[in-house]
Amino acid sequence: MNLDLLTTLREQNPIVFNIANFVTVQDVANGLNAIGASPIMSAEPIEAPDMVKIAGAICLNLGTLTQRQVEQMKVVGQLANQQQKPIVLDPVAVGASTYRHDVAQRLLETFKVAVIRGNAGEIATLAGIDWQAKGIDAGSGDGDLIKIAQTCALKYHCVVVLSGPTDVVTDGKRVIQVHNGTPLFQLHVGSGDLLSSLVAAFTAVSGDDYFEAAQTACLVLAVTGQLVVKQMTADRPGTFAFELLDKLHLITIEEVKRLASIS
Amino acid sequence: MNLDLLTTLREQNPIVFNIANFVTVQDVANGLNAIGASPIMSAEPIEAPDMVKIAGAICLNLGTLTQRQVEQMKVVGQLANQQQKPIVLDPVAVGASTYRHDVAQRLLETFKVAVIRGNAGEIATLAGIDWQAKGIDAGSGDGDLIKIAQTCALKYHCVVVLSGPTDVVTDGKRVIQVHNGTPLFQLHVGSGDLLSSLVAAFTAVSGDDYFEAAQTACLVLAVTGQLVVKQMTADRPGTFAFELLDKLHLITIEEVKRLASIS
Amino acid sequence: MNLDLLTTLREQNPIVFNIANFVTVQDVANGLNAIGASPIMSAEPIEAPDMVKIAGAICLNLGTLTQRQVEQMKVVGQLANQQQKPIVLDPVAVGASTYRHDVAQRLLETFKVAVIRGNAGEIATLAGIDWQAKGIDAGSGDGDLIKIAQTCALKYHCVVVLSGPTDVVTDGKRVIQVHNGTPLFQLHVGSGDLLSSLVAAFTAVSGDDYFEAAQTACLVLAVTGQLVVKQMTADRPGTFAFELLDKLHLITIEEVKRLASIS
Repeated sequence: MNLDLLTTLREQNPIVFNIANFVTVQDVANGLNAIGASPIMSAEPIEAPDMVKIAGAICLNLGTLTQRQVEQMKVVGQLANQQQKPIVLDPVAVGASTYRHDVAQRLLETFKVAVIRGNAGEIATLAGIDWQAKGIDAGSGDGDLIKIAQTCALKYHCVVVLSGPTDVVTDGKRVIQVHNGTPLFQLHVGSGDLLSSLVAAFTAVSGDDYFEAAQTACLVLAVTGQLVVKQMTADRPGTFAFELLDKLHLITIEEVKRLASIS
Repeated sequence: MNLDLLTTLREQNPIVFNIANFVTVQDVANGLNAIGASPIMSAEPIEAPDMVKIAGAICLNLGTLTQRQVEQMKVVGQLANQQQKPIVLDPVAVGASTYRHDVAQRLLETFKVAVIRGNAGEIATLAGIDWQAKGIDAGSGDGDLIKIAQTCALKYHCVVVLSGPTDVVTDGKRVIQVHNGTPLFQLHVGSGDLLSSLVAAFTAVSGDDYFEAAQTACLVLAVTGQLVVKQMTADRPGTFAFELLDKLHLITIEEVKRLASIS
Repeated sequence: MNLDLLTTLREQNPIVFNIANFVTVQDVANGLNAIGASPIMSAEPIEAPDMVKIAGAICLNLGTLTQRQVEQMKVVGQLANQQQKPIVLDPVAVGASTYRHDVAQRLLETFKVAVIRGNAGEIATLAGIDWQAKGIDAGSGDGDLIKIAQTCALKYHCVVVLSGPTDVVTDGKRVIQVHNGTPLFQLHVGSGDLLSSLVAAFTAVSGDDYFEAAQTACLVLAVTGQLVVKQMTADRPGTFAFELLDKLHLITIEEVKRLASIS
């Protein structure tokens, strides 16, 4: 785990170009800004070359995809590969519709991604493992989470973040589990989208070590949430949302180190 | 009034599929999540069959409609009718443009809705009663609110929620008025959109009794807002927004019962 | 400086029709509502005539523009000119892509705007002055900010607001600088978008004096932010966002006068 990446991120303020889920886009932009990155959202394929050029990393979120957005993602993904800018794919609700599943497959065949970030149901769907997915939620189901994440990583030759109460991060061989976090993340819509974009921000400053970048993003966000909840006397999802932004801005490497629970 | 529906909702976590107003979509998603439902937003007609299939109810919001969205709504509405999933229609600013009025009429001819939720101006416009509507606001005007709501309900053979300082809920014959609430709802953009989606969430767990579902949603939200404001020393719309999410998660049937003012 | 415009705004509740940046749209709508204006967003060109008709002013935000939105902006801009409704243009990230630059130029040739509101990099780009723009941020660069703003104003025959730590407001000849504000505005995504829409709200109640309207909007927002931050013990971007909405609703002319630092 290389927590110095947080310092690097705050010094370099990398631009993260998001093709976004319009449900959570404001929160994601604010989260990126709060931690020290620079969010940019664009919806017009014509400007894809310019946007990829200034970006340090790309985050493609399938949350509210349309055919138009899929075309944009293809263009952006290929440009990003040419320019060696890392791509994070967030396959939101990929198990909820055949269309999403087909789109995700097609995108993954069109360009190479650095990291896939999803919940257990989404990663299992991509890995081709049966799992009871229920819309955007993780659903419940059996199965070894580590094996699911590894299968997905090996299938797509990338790093996989399977996030949940415990985040599993793997490149197919190496595995790190982040045990930090809080159930409040589930109560706040867009926690997953934020994590995906934070992973992208860290890949922008990690060199080629996307495994490192992904772990660090997971740990920083999980500990941040945990610190926010420590102050709470009840489960308050509205309060959690804005205090998470506050704390993403203020959190120090020392705080992260002190609470880190990884294995 | 069947407040046990709140318990049922929290146990069943119904999926509410929203064709959303992009202005308020994040807040609506968080509100649904906070109360115990599961929001899903989709903007692509191709996945309509899958989305309707997993949904417990549908909420169609005309707030930022486009021709594309109207086509999507037609497909989704017809599928929902076939699968007997209740539809809530929110005719945002239907009095503000001829186009919106035409769209609303066409949608209501294309499929059957369970509930229409709007402010006085919007419901009057749909009912064909003259009313001075001014954009998205309720506007001011004369007229018996109960009669307006009943006329609309009888015209479209559905339950109508005419929301405002007093919410009027009617199936054309039976009428319930919810006197709870707070003027802060007017200061927070998207209170109406949230109510519409909450009504949808309750129809997903109410069986065929949409009159019951609509009342319960109105009462729960109105009392929640009232409890939030009780703690405030001044009108703070930003604070209201996040504390409303907190309280939607924490509110108990007992609290609702204690404050309920209905007639 | 005519602070009575704030009172007029609160009495008249002008409708501001926004063609919006979907990243920040909810926050902008809430900010307009909080100060006493009435936001309306529309994404469908067909209803442009009706929307322009009910609007007191228009705000066109290039933040997440698409070809579709550009077509809508052309229609809306021309209608607004015909009906003498003031237009505020926010050229978000105009320096970040050739496409955005071309679009901004084309729009400014198609209709006349009352005010352009951007950061230093954006205004310099429009003025044709070399400036190192980096995505949506102001970037850093040399150059006399007043001269940049004046050049832009003279080129497009409109009022220009170059916002930043000091806001420069000019009609090409007259210049006012607003020294109020707080660095927290930079930490909150959408502060610029909000300012643009607030400028629009003030132009809706200022008669033809857009120079006056623009100054007043800058001063009111800057002082509001400053008052919010005065209560803070650390930089909390999440807290800042909601307290800004609270304070926009509560701020008085007296408070603005007391803190105003203009030259």
